[in-house]
Amino acid sequence: MHRRHFTRLASAGLAAALGLPKFSRRDFDPVTVTGDRLLAQLRELAQFGSNANGGVSRVAYSPADLQARAWITRVMREAGLTVRTDAGGNLVGRREGTVRTLPPILFGSHIDSVPDGGNYDGTVGSLAAIETARTFRERGLATRHALEVIVFQNEEGGLVGSRALSGELLPEHLTRVSASGRTLAEGTAALGGDPSDLGRARRSPGDVAAYLELHIEQGGTLEREQRHIGIVTGIVGITWWDVTITGFSNHAGTTPMDQRQDALLAAARFIQAVHRIVTSEPGRQVGTVGRIEAMPGAPNVIAGEVRLSLEIRDLEAAKIAVLFERIQNEAQSIGEASATRFAFTPAFESTPAPTDDRVRGAIAGAAASLGLTTMELPSGAGHDAQSVARFAPIGMLFVPSVGGISHSAKEFTRPEDVVNGANVLANAVLALD
Amino acid sequence: MHRRHFTRLASAGLAAALGLPKFSRRDFDPVTVTGDRLLAQLRELAQFGSNANGGVSRVAYSPADLQARAWITRVMREAGLTVRTDAGGNLVGRREGTVRTLPPILFGSHIDSVPDGGNYDGTVGSLAAIETARTFRERGLATRHALEVIVFQNEEGGLVGSRALSGELLPEHLTRVSASGRTLAEGTAALGGDPSDLGRARRSPGDVAAYLELHIEQGGTLEREQRHIGIVTGIVGITWWDVTITGFSNHAGTTPMDQRQDALLAAARFIQAVHRIVTSEPGRQVGTVGRIEAMPGAPNVIAGEVRLSLEIRDLEAAKIAVLFERIQNEAQSIGEASATRFAFTPAFESTPAPTDDRVRGAIAGAAASLGLTTMELPSGAGHDAQSVARFAPIGMLFVPSVGGISHSAKEFTRPEDVVNGANVLANAVLALD
Repeated sequence: MHRRHFTRLASAGLAAALGLPKFSRRDFDPVTVTGDRLLAQLRELAQFGSNANGGVSRVAYSPADLQARAWITRVMREAGLTVRTDAGGNLVGRREGTVRTLPPILFGSHIDSVPDGGNYDGTVGSLAAIETARTFRERGLATRHALEVIVFQNEEGGLVGSRALSGELLPEHLTRVSASGRTLAEGTAALGGDPSDLGRARRSPGDVAAYLELHIEQGGTLEREQRHIGIVTGIVGITWWDVTITGFSNHAGTTPMDQRQDALLAAARFIQAVHRIVTSEPGRQVGTVGRIEAMPGAPNVIAGEVRLSLEIRDLEAAKIAVLFERIQNEAQSIGEASATRFAFTPAFESTPAPTDDRVRGAIAGAAASLGLTTMELPSGAGHDAQSVARFAPIGMLFVPSVGGISHSAKEFTRPEDVVNGANVLANAVLALD
Repeated sequence: MHRRHFTRLASAGLAAALGLPKFSRRDFDPVTVTGDRLLAQLRELAQFGSNANGGVSRVAYSPADLQARAWITRVMREAGLTVRTDAGGNLVGRREGTVRTLPPILFGSHIDSVPDGGNYDGTVGSLAAIETARTFRERGLATRHALEVIVFQNEEGGLVGSRALSGELLPEHLTRVSASGRTLAEGTAALGGDPSDLGRARRSPGDVAAYLELHIEQGGTLEREQRHIGIVTGIVGITWWDVTITGFSNHAGTTPMDQRQDALLAAARFIQAVHRIVTSEPGRQVGTVGRIEAMPGAPNVIAGEVRLSLEIRDLEAAKIAVLFERIQNEAQSIGEASATRFAFTPAFESTPAPTDDRVRGAIAGAAASLGLTTMELPSGAGHDAQSVARFAPIGMLFVPSVGGISHSAKEFTRPEDVVNGANVLANAVLALD
């Protein structure tokens, strides 16, 4: 396989050397992938960790994840890629370019899932990236830049693989236990990475020409607006606090209503305040309280302590800061009115990652050449692309999720949208090249 | 011991037979218990299941509970009582009366605790009841009615022992696992009861002349109002529902604020509505949400389902019903406004138990004869007395809890208040007799 591969590259390089226009064919006639093959692979990948409800549980480092990675390594090799596992445990499949001095164009996604997740999140982008490389090979399309298809590890557990590239994965994170029950160190080693030498996975500014990622939207905007392709303006920053509300636990029968220090009643006021403040100004910012615990948690005892999560997302870090300040002030007032005390502990933060103008332009041009409609939108979800944004220009394209459902067995993207996405990805890579 | 006991009874019976005024001495000179002994026993009982924080964990059927019951059986025998364990697992210590045809006067409480509980809840009433019987014996005071001191089993786990007396403890309840890890059937058998023949524990109307229980207040009213003794007007009814709020779980980053079906936001509105409705009319009714669970419970996922408890207590069942109806209506509105659905499942109900005029009068008279101040108040907490109310006239007296704290290592009743309570109990028993 490798021999034929290099032969084609050489002939394409030859055409370039002869001074022929490099991409004349594509200017009028966009390349298209083999959609049926891509869809068949998507179905095959869904077998690893499949659940009775039609979804998958393929959390990173689980047996299903390890088996799926072995399978996808074979698919990458069949596509003519030279595959290695980097020190961060990511699969990297490389195809050389005609200009050896240029840094590679990187594109890909992930194949791990949340517990009881769906069949499209990450897998569409990963398989479309491989299909793109395979299509180029089959059509004899050489690129000036080397191409690197990347299948990141443990995206769902906190962008673990991509943070190894950006240097954000620190040794102290490696003891964290992931959904599989394995620590990040154990899991990374199980995938063939080297957790003791993560520095080797790191990429610096200039190491990568651009990064492209196709992903399902995981929201309902494209479906509602009836557009084929979403051009991502940026990936929102996420800030997450642990909030503790301290009241006084007491007997629910003997403590009059006006003498309670009810931490759960204060929490209820807080949850409403978060909603009110976040929706009080225009924009696409979101604020969520998704986790709550009341102690001691008995029907006949007034809650003395409540712990809950507060998460705010926006494309601008400054807006997150302003909203948080208003929420904190409101919490102070609620605390004073209800004889409770609020404490906020920062638990997680990812800074917003804007996408690159040039990459967005390549996606827009590719979609236009394929006759597909587009719209710009932010990504409210976190993605590996945001780690890559630390050292390279990035771009992301979305395809519609039916009903906006994700992280669920009900997650679904129509076959034609999967193929549309792969075609736009392929042509955007060529346009960037 | 028994021989001496009967000798004294016989001589007291003789006095009655000679036509001497039965209680002339007490009309002017109330009987008083040996306070130091009572307080020493309270300290001794606190050793069983003692925690490092000064409180106790003596949940029913635990080794600490079994040891404490063996110890208190000895104390009851030292007080001259004939002790048996009834089929319901309750300790019953009997002292015969002079009129064999009269039903007994029953008085007592419980000695099991909540996990990580305090040293006064139940124990004060149990030991004061034994001390009362011992004092009568030492003073040669005979009573017309037989006296039965009762130490109920597993009060904290749902009035288990007293419900065996009232016939409310049904075979299907016996499989319930109590805090000790043992089922009610296993625990009752471990105490020497007979769970296969609970009917033998049952008492019918007419079987008991009256029931009296001394208990700590477990609230702060007596302390605030600076009264020695609380005369309980009734024990509130408790109704408890499991409430399920169904929304739609979705990605917290990709679902715009105006398109969420956030079950936790709906729960927050509900918790506030409960507080508002319960406090919207005069009275001592209370409403509490003490338990909450949000699913899936992740900071980055909108809660699709919330389960919480709703508990309402009042002296009047009708008022509970009206408040619940208003809360249900409000929940309906919240559900419509937030695209969520509320479902209420009844989980527990105890009907209000008013106390008996005559028994309240006996307590008031006893307190007055001792120069102690009193006030009437409802019991917001459940007590074994409410089971007994199903078949006999009941009365309860409270002594102050410092800071209103209960079910906590910080639970504290001043020694003088413990002794005051025992003295009122003793004289109220005599007055009833």
